[in-house]
Amino acid sequence: MKIDILTTFPWMIKPILESSILKIAAEKEIVSFDVIDIREYSKDKHKNTDDYPFGGGEGMIMAPQPLFDSIRGCVENNTEKIIFPTPDGVIFNQKKAKKLSDENHIIFICGHYKGIDQRVRDNFEIEEISIGDFVLTGGEIPALAMIDSIVRLVPGVINNIKSALNDSFSQPLLDCPWYTRPEIYEGKKVPKILLSGNHKKIDNWRKSQRENKTKILRPDLWKKYLKLKNK
Amino acid sequence: MKIDILTTFPWMIKPILESSILKIAAEKEIVSFDVIDIREYSKDKHKNTDDYPFGGGEGMIMAPQPLFDSIRGCVENNTEKIIFPTPDGVIFNQKKAKKLSDENHIIFICGHYKGIDQRVRDNFEIEEISIGDFVLTGGEIPALAMIDSIVRLVPGVINNIKSALNDSFSQPLLDCPWYTRPEIYEGKKVPKILLSGNHKKIDNWRKSQRENKTKILRPDLWKKYLKLKNK
Repeated sequence: MKIDILTTFPWMIKPILESSILKIAAEKEIVSFDVIDIREYSKDKHKNTDDYPFGGGEGMIMAPQPLFDSIRGCVENNTEKIIFPTPDGVIFNQKKAKKLSDENHIIFICGHYKGIDQRVRDNFEIEEISIGDFVLTGGEIPALAMIDSIVRLVPGVINNIKSALNDSFSQPLLDCPWYTRPEIYEGKKVPKILLSGNHKKIDNWRKSQRENKTKILRPDLWKKYLKLKNK
Repeated sequence: MKIDILTTFPWMIKPILESSILKIAAEKEIVSFDVIDIREYSKDKHKNTDDYPFGGGEGMIMAPQPLFDSIRGCVENNTEKIIFPTPDGVIFNQKKAKKLSDENHIIFICGHYKGIDQRVRDNFEIEEISIGDFVLTGGEIPALAMIDSIVRLVPGVINNIKSALNDSFSQPLLDCPWYTRPEIYEGKKVPKILLSGNHKKIDNWRKSQRENKTKILRPDLWKKYLKLKNK
């Protein structure tokens, strides 16, 4: 998989690509990342990428030329999936992450400031995706959230895919409590069952913990889970 | 406001704190950030912070000692708000961001790997918050998303708070299309009304664009908006 990230803040992106799972994915040559500075495509003599909005209003808008040209610079054969993180988009979730993990080439456009010129959104076949109903300064953080979540699911990235598949939302259930050494910390003990060595009982305990937690904390997920279970 | 971020990946956090709005907030001395390496608190001779889960299972769990001690290292007077980003938490949104922007001191605990020892979650008064129904490798990216979204709303950070207040979700409406120069780009024109100079007409156009977009793309938000409107 190839992932291009178009941004005016390349130094925000790189250190995260060089950490943890994303670093491993690149080292294993399963995913290659390219961070593209939109500014380098600007034909403006000061390399500006933004300008005042037509019709007035606070905040700056990212201009069409550097975006048109940098997007075109990434497109190789028109099978690319172009994603624009924006609060206007469809809500990102684990199902969407799984679907996107099958793509060959994803291009993320990170907007910044007030927004990007609408003609960019109208001209390219762009999927607009939101990570939630809150306002961020730019698309860099949500792009990184989506990238982390997608790349984890690309086959080969996580050694033991069982771990990824048991995470929250791979089934629509929250995760169970986890404990590690020491057995007693400041007087607080690990639940006895986890020390029993009885794996069937442990699995059942974990499942019931997940179910109870979901039922209480996320009745919306619980409903989904029951539907799937009864299918 | 003071924001502490407890992490085992400090180099992921720092470049983002040194960009854009977060950088401005620090330069104006409205918000101070402290990135704390959990590893430095580890009493393990190899400075390890994670260990195998009791009861078996894939993935590593962050151990109690380094977390207990690093959290205590940040707490000054027990009025701190401690946040643990986790898919188990309540869903983060703009309302939550606004509420958290009133805090004096927030401590973010970034888990990594499979999770953190449950005794940490049970021992401290922690608010568990999720940025959405998807799985990430660690709490660093969601913590940064929340921080950006909260800090933007701290009075004084954004010069013209009008801009922030007109963003998506400050009212439960998606944003309108925005355009900047040139007036014609590759034959695509800016809507005439934005060039009219008639600010009342422009405001009405923008409002109707926001309403129509929300009605079509996010019927759930549209319902909320109508409720608020009819109050």
